[in-house]
Amino acid sequence: MPAEFSGVTAVCKANIYFDGKVISHTLVDGAGKKITLGLIFAGSYAFNTGAPERMDMVAGVCRVKLAGQEGFVAYPAGTTFFVPGDSSFEIAVDEGIAEYICSFG
Amino acid sequence: MPAEFSGVTAVCKANIYFDGKVISHTLVDGAGKKITLGLIFAGSYAFNTGAPERMDMVAGVCRVKLAGQEGFVAYPAGTTFFVPGDSSFEIAVDEGIAEYICSFG
Repeated sequence: MPAEFSGVTAVCKANIYFDGKVISHTLVDGAGKKITLGLIFAGSYAFNTGAPERMDMVAGVCRVKLAGQEGFVAYPAGTTFFVPGDSSFEIAVDEGIAEYICSFG
Repeated sequence: MPAEFSGVTAVCKANIYFDGKVISHTLVDGAGKKITLGLIFAGSYAFNTGAPERMDMVAGVCRVKLAGQEGFVAYPAGTTFFVPGDSSFEIAVDEGIAEYICSFG
């Protein structure tokens, strides 16, 4: 799991969801691939996906339920999960702030 | 005011202050200059400075009182203020989320 991304373009305007409970900054790497660095505050949120997403957990703990799954699975810092494209997932943080790297495509 | 920074290194771990009320992601440009992209949630906060700071407001509105100043001055999106090095300032957001670019040195 990278600690940093070099040679990227960083977009200054943040992505804000659920009134600021989920926020991220967008990076675009040299190959044009989109990456977001995000924070999730306590709560439970549902997202749809367009492209497939790789989620690397940087800090904190989140629980994730992919579309069609029965229950939530916990992902602490240092773990990774994948969300199929054209799908959806629920993500919950019970306490503190979880941080992630989301790689699209 | 830039919409993006290209050719930078982006640090994945966010900077979190005041229990998440102020958060930012750090960029380092090609010349080694540090820049942060940040968000400020409603509240009032005091910061110390090491290096001088240039604050470009990307979204929302904040009010700022520099050390030694009598009152707060409002800075909406699109405006810029400067904080001397080895000093301090108070920054307040009354509603919504303010976003900034902080350039150090």
